Amino acid sequence: MAQLISTEDVADPRLDDFRELSTADRRPDRPGGRGLVIAEGTVVVRRLLASDYPVRAVLGVARRVEELAGDLTGIDVPAYVTSADVMARVVGFHLNRGVLAVADRAPQPDAAGILARSRVVAVLEGVGDHENLGALFRNAAALGVDGVLLGPGCADPLYRRSVRVSMGNVLRVPFAALPDWPEGLQLVRRHGFRIAALTPRADSITLREIGPGKVALLLGSEGPGLTQEAIAAADVAVRIPMTEGVDSLNVATAAAIAFYEVSGR
Amino acid sequence: MAQLISTEDVADPRLDDFRELSTADRRPDRPGGRGLVIAEGTVVVRRLLASDYPVRAVLGVARRVEELAGDLTGIDVPAYVTSADVMARVVGFHLNRGVLAVADRAPQPDAAGILARSRVVAVLEGVGDHENLGALFRNAAALGVDGVLLGPGCADPLYRRSVRVSMGNVLRVPFAALPDWPEGLQLVRRHGFRIAALTPRADSITLREIGPGKVALLLGSEGPGLTQEAIAAADVAVRIPMTEGVDSLNVATAAAIAFYEVSGR
Repeated sequence: MAQLISTEDVADPRLDDFRELSTADRRPDRPGGRGLVIAEGTVVVRRLLASDYPVRAVLGVARRVEELAGDLTGIDVPAYVTSADVMARVVGFHLNRGVLAVADRAPQPDAAGILARSRVVAVLEGVGDHENLGALFRNAAALGVDGVLLGPGCADPLYRRSVRVSMGNVLRVPFAALPDWPEGLQLVRRHGFRIAALTPRADSITLREIGPGKVALLLGSEGPGLTQEAIAAADVAVRIPMTEGVDSLNVATAAAIAFYEVSGR
Repeated sequence: MAQLISTEDVADPRLDDFRELSTADRRPDRPGGRGLVIAEGTVVVRRLLASDYPVRAVLGVARRVEELAGDLTGIDVPAYVTSADVMARVVGFHLNRGVLAVADRAPQPDAAGILARSRVVAVLEGVGDHENLGALFRNAAALGVDGVLLGPGCADPLYRRSVRVSMGNVLRVPFAALPDWPEGLQLVRRHGFRIAALTPRADSITLREIGPGKVALLLGSEGPGLTQEAIAAADVAVRIPMTEGVDSLNVATAAAIAFYEVSGR
């Protein structure tokens, strides 16, 4: 069981992991200059506690920490209980979710490991916006995608904003970098996946026409979309039928439709 | 052709429509206390100029106004050209999109008018978040939805943030209030629509099982979802098949999947 520890001291060094959250994603003092994994709010904290990430500590107001009592059973981490005011002064702003947890980053599976146990994966190129990336993970989790592979130009799924927008689903859907772009797509193909590039190009087939079998959905960023190199390296180009003259959908929304179509077959 | 008028006077009364945009949605001095329709950025301004809304004026830096030259041809509105600095001081913050247009609100079609010429409509209950509502309109426009009916608790599609997030598609997809909730759904039914309530309830059919014909997709807010009264007033309950233990999708994302499924048949 987690130890519940009351503190009302803003300067308490045991709360240092939670300080100045708005800049906590950049930590020159830590490996790769990247921050800890930070979960905000009961739902996401619960997901972090249930994950394989090594949780370092929990900080919250009494009511929120009590809600997590069941989740904290059997986990040996300190849970600091304080007032909303002290919490706000530690994290640097008022946090209306009332509870936080931090964890160390953990070794991720590699791309081959994810591919070996998946039926549907998403492969991303240039999805550099943390909110779009988080939303995409949320959609992947809801719609049965088994893993996400990150090509060049993608944001870090463990950034605080990605974790929050994903509703903690970055902690559940396995992800890995896919090096050597776009040649690395050969690894995906060798695992038996058909690589379907989502693009509005006129010569693409519709999503509904993707055949059966293992599918890797190749998705580009919202503005420029996939590079020609990535599309050329795919097995098939697919599109979502859209009204003429309307801009493309948001990348996470387009991904959701593709996930729905491919996972549901 | 619009008149191009240069001004570098922050206090120029001809720029009053553009002042203090962050509070421009509330205008106690105007009908219903609601602000003007405000378009931000070249794409959305272009949509406003092409719409039936009576445009009052355009304000932008020279480069952005020049980009709109073709769109301004044949439109008799003043287009004020100024510096980025004056523009920032008028609107109250730095606006990196560089061009704005304002229009009066215009009479909207009523619900019966929309239903008479539609095949797929969305009917919303409690979608009170301006960003979700804007995203939903963007998805509706892209995925072939002919109109949106607003039940109780919905945000105003013409709020500045909704206009922006919709990429101006609130100006293209017709919408109307649907009074008398949920009895007003009878009007939808009388126009030959099958009313399909989107809900994760276990006794619902999947989206793919919706039959052919005109469909009204009934969508609730992200948290609580549709009320029991609304679900009971529908003809059928439908769900998006989802992974167990994952929260519902964002309402605009769920709507996109439903629009895709229903419009594409």
